[in-house]
Amino acid sequence: MTPASEGRWALIVHGGAKAIEPGEEEANRRGVLQALAAGRAVLEGGGAAVDAVEAAIRVMEDLPVFNAGRGSALNEAGGVEMCAGLMDGRDLSVGAVGAIRNVRHPIAVAKRLLGEKEILLVGEGATLFAKENGAEMVAGEALVTEARKAALEAMHDTVGAVAMDRGGNLAAGTSTGGLAGAKVGRIGDSPLPGNGLYADNHVGGVSFSGDGETIARLALAARVMAGMAEQGPEAAIRDAVERLPGTGGAGADGGAIAIDRTGRIGWAHNSPAFAVAYANEGGGEPRACLGKDEEARD
Amino acid sequence: MTPASEGRWALIVHGGAKAIEPGEEEANRRGVLQALAAGRAVLEGGGAAVDAVEAAIRVMEDLPVFNAGRGSALNEAGGVEMCAGLMDGRDLSVGAVGAIRNVRHPIAVAKRLLGEKEILLVGEGATLFAKENGAEMVAGEALVTEARKAALEAMHDTVGAVAMDRGGNLAAGTSTGGLAGAKVGRIGDSPLPGNGLYADNHVGGVSFSGDGETIARLALAARVMAGMAEQGPEAAIRDAVERLPGTGGAGADGGAIAIDRTGRIGWAHNSPAFAVAYANEGGGEPRACLGKDEEARD
Repeated sequence: MTPASEGRWALIVHGGAKAIEPGEEEANRRGVLQALAAGRAVLEGGGAAVDAVEAAIRVMEDLPVFNAGRGSALNEAGGVEMCAGLMDGRDLSVGAVGAIRNVRHPIAVAKRLLGEKEILLVGEGATLFAKENGAEMVAGEALVTEARKAALEAMHDTVGAVAMDRGGNLAAGTSTGGLAGAKVGRIGDSPLPGNGLYADNHVGGVSFSGDGETIARLALAARVMAGMAEQGPEAAIRDAVERLPGTGGAGADGGAIAIDRTGRIGWAHNSPAFAVAYANEGGGEPRACLGKDEEARD
Repeated sequence: MTPASEGRWALIVHGGAKAIEPGEEEANRRGVLQALAAGRAVLEGGGAAVDAVEAAIRVMEDLPVFNAGRGSALNEAGGVEMCAGLMDGRDLSVGAVGAIRNVRHPIAVAKRLLGEKEILLVGEGATLFAKENGAEMVAGEALVTEARKAALEAMHDTVGAVAMDRGGNLAAGTSTGGLAGAKVGRIGDSPLPGNGLYADNHVGGVSFSGDGETIARLALAARVMAGMAEQGPEAAIRDAVERLPGTGGAGADGGAIAIDRTGRIGWAHNSPAFAVAYANEGGGEPRACLGKDEEARD
Protein backbone atom coordinates (compact mmCIF):
# COMPACT_ATOMS: atom_id res chain seq x y z
CA MET A 1 0.00 0.00 0.00
CA THR A 2 1.30 3.42 -0.89
CA PRO A 3 1.23 5.68 2.15
CA ALA A 4 -1.59 8.21 1.93
CA SER A 5 1.04 10.94 2.06
CA GLU A 6 2.44 9.73 -1.30
CA GLY A 7 6.06 9.95 -0.28
CA ARG A 8 5.94 13.45 1.17
CA TRP A 9 7.64 14.22 4.46
CA ALA A 10 6.18 16.39 7.22
CA LEU A 11 7.74 17.83 10.37
CA ILE A 12 6.66 19.90 13.35
CA VAL A 13 8.73 20.97 16.36
CA HIS A 14 7.93 22.94 19.49
CA GLY A 15 9.89 24.75 22.18
CA GLY A 16 7.57 24.26 25.12
CA ALA A 17 4.07 25.08 26.33
CA LYS A 18 4.95 28.03 28.55
CA ALA A 19 4.89 31.75 29.04
CA ILE A 20 7.50 33.50 26.87
CA GLU A 21 9.13 36.42 28.69
CA PRO A 22 9.28 39.77 26.90
CA GLY A 23 12.53 39.92 24.97
CA GLU A 24 12.68 36.14 24.49
CA GLU A 25 10.27 35.97 21.56
CA GLU A 26 12.89 36.02 18.84
CA ALA A 27 15.17 33.52 20.57
CA ASN A 28 12.24 31.11 20.73
CA ARG A 29 11.28 31.73 17.10
CA ARG A 30 14.82 31.34 15.83
CA GLY A 31 15.31 28.26 17.98
CA VAL A 32 12.34 26.31 16.66
CA LEU A 33 13.22 27.30 13.06
CA GLN A 34 16.78 26.10 13.59
CA ALA A 35 15.50 22.80 14.99
CA LEU A 36 13.09 22.47 12.08
CA ALA A 37 15.90 23.04 9.58
CA ALA A 38 17.98 20.27 11.16
CA GLY A 39 15.13 17.77 11.02
CA ARG A 40 14.12 18.86 7.56
CA ALA A 41 17.61 18.22 6.20
CA VAL A 42 17.32 14.61 7.37
CA LEU A 43 13.91 14.12 5.77
CA GLU A 44 14.85 15.81 2.48
CA GLY A 45 17.86 13.54 2.31
CA GLY A 46 15.57 10.53 2.52
CA GLY A 47 16.37 9.87 6.18
CA ALA A 48 14.12 8.20 8.72
CA ALA A 49 11.55 9.99 10.88
CA VAL A 50 13.34 8.93 14.12
CA ASP A 51 16.57 10.49 12.87
CA ALA A 52 14.78 13.72 11.95
CA VAL A 53 13.17 13.92 15.39
CA GLU A 54 16.51 13.34 17.09
CA ALA A 55 18.25 15.97 14.91
CA ALA A 56 15.60 18.58 15.68
CA ILE A 57 15.62 17.93 19.41
CA ARG A 58 19.42 17.93 19.62
CA VAL A 59 19.38 21.51 18.35
CA MET A 60 16.93 22.60 21.05
CA GLU A 61 18.89 20.75 23.75
CA ASP A 62 21.86 23.00 22.93
CA LEU A 63 19.90 26.26 23.04
CA PRO A 64 19.66 27.80 26.53
CA VAL A 65 16.29 29.41 25.75
CA PHE A 66 14.68 25.97 25.99
CA ASN A 67 14.31 23.86 29.14
CA ALA A 68 16.13 20.80 27.79
CA GLY A 69 19.81 19.87 27.84
CA ARG A 70 21.63 23.17 28.32
CA GLY A 71 19.15 25.51 29.98
CA SER A 72 17.55 22.76 32.07
CA ALA A 73 15.55 23.67 35.17
CA LEU A 74 17.08 23.15 38.62
CA ASN A 75 15.45 20.71 41.01
CA GLU A 76 15.03 21.34 44.73
CA ALA A 77 18.59 20.16 45.38
CA GLY A 78 19.89 22.67 42.82
CA GLY A 79 20.84 19.92 40.38
CA VAL A 80 19.86 19.02 36.85
CA GLU A 81 18.06 15.79 35.98
CA MET A 82 16.63 15.43 32.50
CA CYS A 83 14.13 13.22 30.71
CA ALA A 84 13.76 12.35 27.03
CA GLY A 85 11.77 9.90 24.97
CA LEU A 86 11.69 8.73 21.37
CA MET A 87 9.11 6.43 19.79
CA ASP A 88 9.34 4.82 16.37
CA GLY A 89 5.96 4.30 14.72
CA ARG A 90 7.29 1.51 12.49
CA ASP A 91 7.42 -1.07 15.27
CA LEU A 92 6.24 0.86 18.35
CA SER A 93 9.74 0.70 19.78
CA VAL A 94 10.48 3.18 22.55
CA GLY A 95 13.72 4.53 23.97
CA ALA A 96 13.46 6.79 26.99
CA VAL A 97 15.53 8.07 29.88
CA GLY A 98 14.40 9.66 33.13
CA ALA A 99 16.26 11.65 35.78
CA ILE A 100 19.46 11.29 33.75
CA ARG A 101 22.43 13.52 34.63
CA ASN A 102 25.53 14.83 32.94
CA VAL A 103 24.63 14.13 29.33
CA ARG A 104 24.63 16.82 26.69
CA HIS A 105 21.94 15.15 24.60
CA PRO A 106 19.37 13.07 26.48
CA ILE A 107 17.50 12.46 23.20
CA ALA A 108 20.57 10.73 21.76
CA VAL A 109 20.70 8.37 24.75
CA ALA A 110 16.98 7.67 24.30
CA LYS A 111 17.63 6.84 20.66
CA ARG A 112 20.47 4.51 21.54
CA LEU A 113 18.01 2.56 23.73
CA LEU A 114 15.70 1.87 20.76
CA GLY A 115 17.75 -1.21 19.95
CA GLU A 116 17.67 -2.64 23.48
CA LYS A 117 15.19 -4.80 25.35
CA GLU A 118 14.69 -2.07 27.96
CA ILE A 119 12.61 0.93 26.91
CA LEU A 120 13.08 3.20 29.92
CA LEU A 121 16.17 3.64 32.08
CA VAL A 122 16.26 6.07 34.97
CA GLY A 123 18.64 7.69 37.43
CA GLU A 124 22.06 6.22 37.98
CA GLY A 125 21.39 3.37 35.57
CA ALA A 126 20.47 5.77 32.77
CA THR A 127 23.62 7.82 33.29
CA LEU A 128 25.71 4.62 33.37
CA PHE A 129 24.13 3.42 30.12
CA ALA A 130 24.92 6.77 28.50
CA LYS A 131 28.57 6.55 29.55
CA GLU A 132 28.95 2.97 28.41
CA ASN A 133 27.47 3.81 25.04
CA GLY A 134 29.68 6.73 24.20
CA ALA A 135 27.25 9.55 24.91
CA GLU A 136 28.76 12.99 25.22
CA MET A 137 29.10 13.59 28.97
CA VAL A 138 29.31 17.05 30.50
CA ALA A 139 29.68 18.50 33.98
CA GLY A 140 26.34 19.26 35.58
CA GLU A 141 27.22 22.96 35.64
CA ALA A 142 27.53 22.99 31.85
CA LEU A 143 23.78 22.44 31.66
CA VAL A 144 22.96 25.33 33.99
CA THR A 145 22.40 28.87 32.75
CA GLU A 146 22.19 32.07 34.79
CA ALA A 147 18.60 32.52 33.72
CA ARG A 148 17.59 29.16 35.21
CA LYS A 149 19.33 29.93 38.48
CA ALA A 150 17.17 33.04 38.73
CA ALA A 151 13.95 31.21 37.89
CA LEU A 152 11.85 30.82 41.00
CA GLU A 153 8.59 29.78 39.47
CA ALA A 154 7.78 26.13 38.86
CA MET A 155 8.34 26.27 35.14
CA HIS A 156 7.60 23.13 33.20
CA ASP A 157 8.38 23.26 29.55
CA THR A 158 9.58 20.50 27.30
CA VAL A 159 10.73 20.49 23.71
CA GLY A 160 9.40 18.04 21.16
CA ALA A 161 9.22 16.99 17.55
CA VAL A 162 7.04 14.77 15.39
CA ALA A 163 8.08 13.69 11.90
CA MET A 164 6.81 11.65 8.98
CA ASP A 165 9.46 10.54 6.52
CA ARG A 166 9.08 9.81 2.78
CA GLY A 167 8.43 6.17 3.60
CA GLY A 168 5.35 7.16 5.60
CA ASN A 169 6.99 6.33 8.92
CA LEU A 170 6.06 8.36 11.99
CA ALA A 171 8.22 9.21 14.99
CA ALA A 172 7.72 11.38 18.06
CA GLY A 173 10.19 12.71 20.61
CA THR A 174 10.43 14.77 23.77
CA SER A 175 13.21 16.23 25.89
CA THR A 176 12.99 18.21 29.11
CA GLY A 177 15.07 19.64 31.89
CA GLY A 178 12.18 18.99 34.24
CA LEU A 179 10.25 21.05 36.69
CA ALA A 180 12.03 23.84 38.57
CA GLY A 181 12.16 23.09 42.30
CA ALA A 182 10.89 19.53 41.93
CA LYS A 183 11.99 16.68 44.15
CA VAL A 184 15.09 14.76 43.11
CA GLY A 185 14.13 11.83 40.89
CA ARG A 186 10.92 13.43 39.62
CA ILE A 187 9.63 12.23 36.27
CA GLY A 188 6.68 13.76 34.44
CA ASP A 189 4.95 12.73 31.24
CA SER A 190 7.85 13.39 28.87
CA PRO A 191 9.55 9.98 28.67
CA LEU A 192 6.38 7.91 29.11
CA PRO A 193 4.64 6.29 26.12
CA GLY A 194 0.93 7.09 26.07
CA ASN A 195 1.51 10.01 28.41
CA GLY A 196 3.94 12.49 26.85
CA LEU A 197 4.44 10.89 23.45
CA TYR A 198 3.30 8.14 21.10
CA ALA A 199 3.89 7.09 17.50
CA ASP A 200 2.25 4.39 15.41
CA ASN A 201 2.50 4.30 11.62
CA HIS A 202 -1.13 3.17 11.43
CA VAL A 203 -2.36 6.29 13.26
CA GLY A 204 0.20 9.10 13.62
CA GLY A 205 2.53 10.63 16.15
CA VAL A 206 2.09 13.08 19.01
CA SER A 207 4.33 14.91 21.50
CA PHE A 208 3.14 16.80 24.60
CA SER A 209 4.48 19.61 26.75
CA GLY A 210 3.11 21.28 29.85
CA ASP A 211 2.09 20.24 33.32
CA GLY A 212 3.72 16.82 33.30
CA GLU A 213 1.90 15.33 36.27
CA THR A 214 -1.54 16.22 34.95
CA ILE A 215 -0.72 15.11 31.39
CA ALA A 216 0.48 11.76 32.75
CA ARG A 217 -2.51 11.25 35.05
CA LEU A 218 -4.82 11.87 32.09
CA ALA A 219 -2.66 9.71 29.75
CA LEU A 220 -3.19 12.42 27.15
CA ALA A 221 -1.00 11.03 24.36
CA ALA A 222 -3.08 7.83 24.40
CA ARG A 223 -6.26 9.93 24.19
CA VAL A 224 -4.95 11.86 21.18
CA MET A 225 -4.00 8.61 19.46
CA ALA A 226 -7.47 7.21 20.10
CA GLY A 227 -9.12 10.27 18.54
CA MET A 228 -6.72 11.14 15.74
CA ALA A 229 -8.04 8.90 12.95
CA GLU A 230 -11.57 10.18 13.28
CA GLN A 231 -10.99 13.80 14.29
CA GLY A 232 -7.69 14.62 12.64
CA PRO A 233 -4.60 15.62 14.61
CA GLU A 234 -5.53 19.17 15.58
CA ALA A 235 -9.04 18.50 16.87
CA ALA A 236 -7.79 15.45 18.76
CA ILE A 237 -5.16 17.58 20.50
CA ARG A 238 -7.68 20.34 21.19
CA ASP A 239 -9.98 17.86 22.96
CA ALA A 240 -7.07 16.55 25.03
CA VAL A 241 -5.79 19.99 25.98
CA GLU A 242 -9.29 21.01 27.07
CA ARG A 243 -9.00 18.44 29.85
CA LEU A 244 -6.21 20.52 31.40
CA PRO A 245 -7.55 23.13 33.80
CA GLY A 246 -5.45 25.76 32.03
CA THR A 247 -4.76 28.13 34.88
CA GLY A 248 -1.88 29.65 32.96
CA GLY A 249 1.69 30.07 34.13
CA ALA A 250 2.57 27.29 36.51
CA GLY A 251 -0.90 25.72 36.43
CA ALA A 252 -2.08 22.63 34.65
CA ASP A 253 -1.69 23.91 31.13
CA GLY A 254 -0.04 22.37 28.12
CA GLY A 255 0.14 21.88 24.42
CA ALA A 256 0.95 19.26 21.84
CA ILE A 257 1.99 18.72 18.25
CA ALA A 258 0.96 15.85 15.99
CA ILE A 259 1.09 14.45 12.48
CA ASP A 260 -1.40 11.85 11.34
CA ARG A 261 -0.70 8.95 8.98
CA THR A 262 -1.83 11.00 5.99
CA GLY A 263 0.74 13.69 6.77
CA ARG A 264 -1.63 16.29 8.21
CA ILE A 265 0.01 18.51 10.83
CA GLY A 266 -1.88 19.73 13.92
CA TRP A 267 -1.14 21.57 17.15
CA ALA A 268 -2.98 23.24 19.99
CA HIS A 269 -2.25 24.61 23.47
CA ASN A 270 -3.86 26.38 26.41
CA SER A 271 -0.59 27.74 27.77
CA PRO A 272 0.11 31.46 27.27
CA ALA A 273 2.56 30.64 24.45
CA PHE A 274 3.71 27.63 22.45
CA ALA A 275 6.57 28.20 20.01
CA VAL A 276 6.21 25.89 17.01
CA ALA A 277 7.70 25.55 13.54
CA TYR A 278 6.46 23.22 10.85
CA ALA A 279 6.91 22.35 7.22
CA ASN A 280 6.00 19.66 4.76
CA GLU A 281 7.29 18.67 1.37
CA GLY A 282 5.80 20.85 -1.34
CA GLY A 283 4.21 23.09 1.27
CA GLY A 284 6.36 26.15 0.64
CA GLU A 285 8.29 28.04 3.28
CA PRO A 286 8.43 26.75 6.86
CA ARG A 287 6.13 28.48 9.33
CA ALA A 288 7.01 29.51 12.84
CA CYS A 289 4.83 31.18 15.44
CA LEU A 290 4.66 31.59 19.18
CA GLY A 291 1.10 30.42 19.63
CA LYS A 292 -2.34 30.07 18.08
CA ASP A 293 -3.09 33.77 18.62
CA GLU A 294 -0.19 34.74 16.41
CA GLU A 295 -1.13 32.15 13.80
CA ALA A 296 -4.67 33.55 13.68
CA ARG A 297 -3.32 37.09 13.12
CA ASP A 298 -1.13 36.10 10.19
CA MET B 1 -26.10 9.67 41.97
CA THR B 2 -26.00 6.37 43.78
CA PRO B 3 -23.15 4.24 42.45
CA ALA B 4 -24.38 1.44 40.23
CA SER B 5 -22.79 -0.98 42.66
CA GLU B 6 -25.22 0.16 45.38
CA GLY B 7 -22.66 0.39 48.12
CA ARG B 8 -21.09 -3.01 47.56
CA TRP B 9 -17.34 -3.42 47.60
CA ALA B 10 -15.36 -5.55 45.13
CA LEU B 11 -11.72 -6.66 45.14
CA ILE B 12 -9.37 -8.65 42.92
CA VAL B 13 -5.68 -9.32 43.43
CA HIS B 14 -3.08 -11.18 41.38
CA GLY B 15 0.36 -12.63 41.98
CA GLY B 16 1.87 -12.17 38.53
CA ALA B 17 1.42 -13.26 34.92
CA LYS B 18 4.06 -15.97 34.86
CA ALA B 19 4.83 -19.66 34.79
CA ILE B 20 4.29 -21.28 38.19
CA GLU B 21 6.92 -23.88 38.95
CA PRO B 22 5.74 -27.32 40.11
CA GLY B 23 5.53 -27.27 43.88
CA GLU B 24 4.80 -23.52 44.03
CA GLU B 25 1.09 -23.76 43.24
CA GLU B 26 -0.10 -23.73 46.82
CA ALA B 27 2.22 -20.92 47.90
CA ASN B 28 0.79 -18.79 45.09
CA ARG B 29 -2.78 -19.73 45.95
CA ARG B 30 -2.33 -19.08 49.66
CA GLY B 31 -0.53 -15.83 48.90
CA VAL B 32 -3.26 -14.27 46.80
CA LEU B 33 -5.91 -15.38 49.30
CA GLN B 34 -3.94 -13.81 52.14
CA ALA B 35 -3.62 -10.57 50.16
CA LEU B 36 -7.32 -10.64 49.36
CA ALA B 37 -8.19 -11.09 53.03
CA ALA B 38 -6.11 -8.04 53.96
CA GLY B 39 -7.77 -5.84 51.37
CA ARG B 40 -11.19 -7.23 52.15
CA ALA B 41 -10.87 -6.33 55.82
CA VAL B 42 -10.32 -2.70 54.81
CA LEU B 43 -13.34 -2.64 52.51
CA GLU B 44 -15.64 -4.42 54.96
CA GLY B 45 -14.65 -1.87 57.56
CA GLY B 46 -15.82 0.89 55.26
CA GLY B 47 -12.26 1.86 54.25
CA ALA B 48 -11.19 3.44 50.98
CA ALA B 49 -10.28 1.54 47.82
CA VAL B 50 -6.73 2.95 47.84
CA ASP B 51 -6.19 1.64 51.35
CA ALA B 52 -7.49 -1.78 50.39
CA VAL B 53 -5.19 -1.95 47.38
CA GLU B 54 -2.23 -0.95 49.52
CA ALA B 55 -3.09 -3.50 52.20
CA ALA B 56 -3.38 -6.33 49.68
CA ILE B 57 -0.13 -5.46 47.92
CA ARG B 58 1.80 -5.09 51.19
CA VAL B 59 1.01 -8.72 51.95
CA MET B 60 2.38 -9.88 48.61
CA GLU B 61 5.49 -7.69 48.96
CA ASP B 62 6.35 -9.68 52.10
CA LEU B 63 5.86 -13.11 50.53
CA PRO B 64 8.98 -14.45 48.78
CA VAL B 65 6.93 -16.41 46.26
CA PHE B 66 6.05 -13.15 44.51
CA ASN B 67 8.46 -10.90 42.60
CA ALA B 68 7.80 -7.75 44.64
CA GLY B 69 9.44 -6.49 47.82
CA ARG B 70 11.02 -9.55 49.42
CA GLY B 71 11.56 -12.01 46.58
CA SER B 72 12.43 -9.33 44.03
CA ALA B 73 14.35 -10.24 40.90
CA LEU B 74 18.03 -9.36 40.62
CA ASN B 75 19.17 -6.96 37.92
CA GLU B 76 22.34 -7.42 35.85
CA ALA B 77 24.39 -5.84 38.64
CA GLY B 78 22.98 -8.36 41.13
CA GLY B 79 20.99 -5.69 42.94
CA VAL B 80 17.33 -5.10 43.65
CA GLU B 81 15.44 -2.10 42.27
CA MET B 82 11.67 -2.10 42.62
CA CYS B 83 8.71 -0.25 41.09
CA ALA B 84 5.22 0.36 42.41
CA GLY B 85 2.25 2.48 41.45
CA LEU B 86 -1.08 3.41 43.00
CA MET B 87 -3.88 5.35 41.31
CA ASP B 88 -6.96 6.78 43.00
CA GLY B 89 -9.99 6.88 40.73
CA ARG B 90 -11.65 9.63 42.77
CA ASP B 91 -9.37 12.38 41.46
CA LEU B 92 -6.99 10.52 39.10
CA SER B 93 -4.16 11.11 41.54
CA VAL B 94 -1.13 8.88 41.05
CA GLY B 95 1.73 7.93 43.35
CA ALA B 96 4.50 5.86 41.84
CA VAL B 97 8.13 4.95 42.41
CA GLY B 98 10.64 3.45 40.00
CA ALA B 99 14.02 1.81 40.53
CA ILE B 100 13.65 2.35 44.28
CA ARG B 101 16.02 0.50 46.61
CA ASN B 102 16.07 -0.61 50.23
CA VAL B 103 12.39 -0.22 51.07
CA ARG B 104 10.34 -3.05 52.45
CA HIS B 105 7.09 -1.78 50.94
CA PRO B 106 7.36 0.15 47.68
CA ILE B 107 3.55 0.38 47.51
CA ALA B 108 3.52 2.31 50.80
CA VAL B 109 5.99 4.84 49.38
CA ALA B 110 3.82 5.17 46.27
CA LYS B 111 0.81 5.83 48.46
CA ARG B 112 2.68 8.47 50.43
CA LEU B 113 3.29 10.31 47.14
CA LEU B 114 -0.45 10.59 46.44
CA GLY B 115 -0.54 13.83 48.42
CA GLU B 116 2.42 15.41 46.62
CA LYS B 117 2.71 17.43 43.44
CA GLU B 118 5.07 14.83 41.95
CA ILE B 119 3.48 11.58 40.78
CA LEU B 120 6.57 9.54 39.93
CA LEU B 121 9.93 9.53 41.69
CA VAL B 122 12.77 7.30 40.57
CA GLY B 123 16.20 6.07 41.63
CA GLU B 124 18.09 7.90 44.31
CA GLY B 125 15.38 10.53 44.68
CA ALA B 126 12.72 7.89 45.30
CA THR B 127 14.81 6.19 47.96
CA LEU B 128 15.53 9.57 49.58
CA PHE B 129 11.82 10.42 49.62
CA ALA B 130 11.09 7.08 51.26
CA LYS B 131 13.67 7.69 53.99
CA GLU B 132 12.48 11.24 54.64
CA ASN B 133 8.90 10.07 54.96
CA GLY B 134 9.46 7.32 57.46
CA ALA B 135 9.25 4.34 55.15
CA GLU B 136 10.56 1.07 56.55
CA MET B 137 14.07 0.75 55.15
CA VAL B 138 15.86 -2.59 54.84
CA ALA B 139 19.25 -3.77 53.62
CA GLY B 140 19.20 -4.76 49.96
CA GLU B 141 20.02 -8.35 50.93
CA ALA B 142 16.84 -8.57 52.98
CA LEU B 143 14.89 -8.41 49.71
CA VAL B 144 16.85 -11.22 48.08
CA THR B 145 15.85 -14.85 48.37
CA GLU B 146 17.87 -17.94 47.42
CA ALA B 147 15.32 -18.80 44.76
CA ARG B 148 15.85 -15.47 42.99
CA LYS B 149 19.61 -15.88 43.06
CA ALA B 150 19.16 -19.17 41.24
CA ALA B 151 16.76 -17.74 38.67
CA LEU B 152 18.51 -17.38 35.36
CA GLU B 153 15.55 -16.72 33.12
CA ALA B 154 14.27 -13.22 32.47
CA MET B 155 11.26 -13.51 34.73
CA HIS B 156 8.93 -10.58 34.75
CA ASP B 157 6.05 -10.84 37.12
CA THR B 158 4.33 -8.12 39.07
CA VAL B 159 1.68 -8.22 41.75
CA GLY B 160 -1.41 -6.07 41.60
CA ALA B 161 -4.79 -5.26 43.07
CA VAL B 162 -7.92 -3.40 42.01
CA ALA B 163 -10.62 -2.42 44.49
CA MET B 164 -13.98 -0.70 44.61
CA ASP B 165 -15.06 0.54 48.03
CA ARG B 166 -18.59 1.01 49.37
CA GLY B 167 -18.53 4.61 48.20
CA GLY B 168 -18.07 3.43 44.59
CA ASN B 169 -14.47 4.62 44.48
CA LEU B 170 -11.99 2.69 42.37
CA ALA B 171 -8.26 2.23 42.92
CA ALA B 172 -5.57 0.20 41.17
CA GLY B 173 -2.06 -0.72 42.25
CA THR B 174 1.05 -2.57 41.12
CA SER B 175 4.34 -3.63 42.69
CA THR B 176 7.27 -5.43 41.11
CA GLY B 177 10.82 -6.48 41.76
CA GLY B 178 11.53 -5.96 38.07
CA LEU B 179 13.02 -8.06 35.32
CA ALA B 180 15.77 -10.53 36.20
CA GLY B 181 19.04 -9.58 34.54
CA ALA B 182 17.78 -6.16 33.40
CA LYS B 183 19.97 -3.10 33.18
CA VAL B 184 20.27 -0.95 36.30
CA GLY B 185 17.59 1.74 36.30
CA ARG B 186 15.17 -0.25 34.15
CA ILE B 187 11.48 0.62 34.49
CA GLY B 188 8.68 -1.29 32.82
CA ASP B 189 4.95 -0.62 32.71
CA SER B 190 4.25 -1.15 36.41
CA PRO B 191 4.50 2.40 37.81
CA LEU B 192 3.25 4.19 34.67
CA PRO B 193 -0.34 5.43 34.41
CA GLY B 194 -2.00 4.28 31.19
CA ASN B 195 0.61 1.56 30.80
CA GLY B 196 0.60 -0.75 33.83
CA LEU B 197 -2.35 0.68 35.76
CA TYR B 198 -5.21 3.15 35.67
CA ALA B 199 -8.24 4.05 37.79
CA ASP B 200 -11.09 6.46 37.15
CA ASN B 201 -14.33 6.35 39.13
CA HIS B 202 -16.27 7.10 35.94
CA VAL B 203 -14.89 4.00 34.19
CA GLY B 204 -13.16 1.49 36.45
CA GLY B 205 -9.70 0.33 37.44
CA VAL B 206 -7.13 -1.99 35.85
CA SER B 207 -3.74 -3.44 36.80
CA PHE B 208 -1.36 -5.24 34.41
CA SER B 209 1.43 -7.77 34.77
CA GLY B 210 3.71 -9.38 32.22
CA ASP B 211 6.21 -8.25 29.64
CA GLY B 212 6.63 -4.70 30.90
CA GLU B 213 8.25 -3.20 27.84
CA THR B 214 5.60 -4.51 25.47
CA ILE B 215 2.72 -3.55 27.76
CA ALA B 216 4.14 0.00 27.99
CA ARG B 217 4.78 0.32 24.25
CA LEU B 218 1.17 -0.68 23.62
CA ALA B 219 -0.14 1.54 26.48
CA LEU B 220 -2.41 -1.37 27.39
CA ALA B 221 -4.01 0.08 30.53
CA ALA B 222 -5.24 3.06 28.48
CA ARG B 223 -6.68 0.64 25.90
CA VAL B 224 -8.55 -1.33 28.55
CA MET B 225 -9.96 1.89 30.02
CA ALA B 226 -11.11 2.98 26.54
CA GLY B 227 -12.94 -0.31 26.01
CA MET B 228 -14.24 -1.11 29.48
CA ALA B 229 -17.53 0.82 29.46
CA GLU B 230 -18.72 -0.79 26.26
CA GLN B 231 -17.20 -4.25 26.52
CA GLY B 232 -17.07 -4.83 30.24
CA PRO B 233 -13.84 -5.42 32.14
CA GLU B 234 -13.04 -8.98 31.08
CA ALA B 235 -13.58 -8.58 27.34
CA ALA B 236 -11.62 -5.31 27.38
CA ILE B 237 -8.68 -7.08 29.02
CA ARG B 238 -8.95 -10.02 26.64
CA ASP B 239 -8.68 -7.67 23.65
CA ALA B 240 -5.66 -5.95 25.18
CA VAL B 241 -3.89 -9.20 26.08
CA GLU B 242 -4.43 -10.48 22.54
CA ARG B 243 -2.10 -7.73 21.35
CA LEU B 244 0.74 -9.43 23.23
CA PRO B 245 2.51 -11.99 21.06
CA GLY B 246 2.16 -14.52 23.88
CA THR B 247 5.20 -16.64 23.26
CA GLY B 248 4.95 -18.04 26.78
CA GLY B 249 7.66 -18.09 29.40
CA ALA B 250 9.91 -15.08 28.95
CA GLY B 251 8.10 -13.81 25.83
CA ALA B 252 5.71 -10.93 25.49
CA ASP B 253 2.91 -12.36 27.53
CA GLY B 254 0.84 -10.88 30.30
CA GLY B 255 -2.39 -10.59 32.14
CA ALA B 256 -4.55 -8.06 33.91
CA ILE B 257 -7.30 -7.65 36.47
CA ALA B 258 -10.05 -5.03 36.43
CA ILE B 259 -13.22 -3.83 38.08
CA ASP B 260 -15.63 -1.56 36.26
CA ARG B 261 -17.67 1.25 37.82
CA THR B 262 -20.63 -1.07 38.31
CA GLY B 263 -18.50 -3.46 40.38
CA ARG B 264 -18.07 -6.17 37.76
CA ILE B 265 -14.78 -8.06 38.14
CA GLY B 266 -12.81 -9.28 35.11
CA TRP B 267 -9.43 -10.82 34.39
CA ALA B 268 -7.58 -12.51 31.54
CA HIS B 269 -4.05 -13.60 30.65
CA ASN B 270 -2.02 -15.33 27.95
CA SER B 271 0.80 -16.27 30.30
CA PRO B 272 1.06 -19.92 31.38
CA ALA B 273 -0.40 -19.06 34.78
CA PHE B 274 -1.94 -16.08 36.58
CA ALA B 275 -2.73 -16.50 40.26
CA VAL B 276 -5.77 -14.43 41.19
CA ALA B 277 -8.19 -14.15 44.09
CA TYR B 278 -11.36 -12.11 44.12
CA ALA B 279 -14.44 -11.42 46.14
CA ASN B 280 -17.30 -8.98 46.32
CA GLU B 281 -19.80 -8.05 48.97
CA GLY B 282 -22.66 -10.52 49.05
CA GLY B 283 -20.85 -12.72 46.55
CA GLY B 284 -20.12 -15.59 48.92
CA GLU B 285 -16.75 -17.17 49.52
CA PRO B 286 -13.64 -15.66 47.90
CA ARG B 287 -12.35 -17.44 44.83
CA ALA B 288 -8.75 -18.19 44.03
CA CYS B 289 -7.28 -19.90 41.01
CA LEU B 290 -4.00 -20.12 39.16
CA GLY B 291 -5.34 -19.27 35.72
CA LYS B 292 -8.33 -19.34 33.39
CA ASP B 293 -7.82 -23.07 32.68
CA GLU B 294 -8.35 -23.86 36.33
CA GLU B 295 -11.35 -21.54 36.55
CA ALA B 296 -12.92 -23.30 33.55
CA ARG B 297 -12.43 -26.71 35.18
CA ASP B 298 -14.12 -25.68 38.42
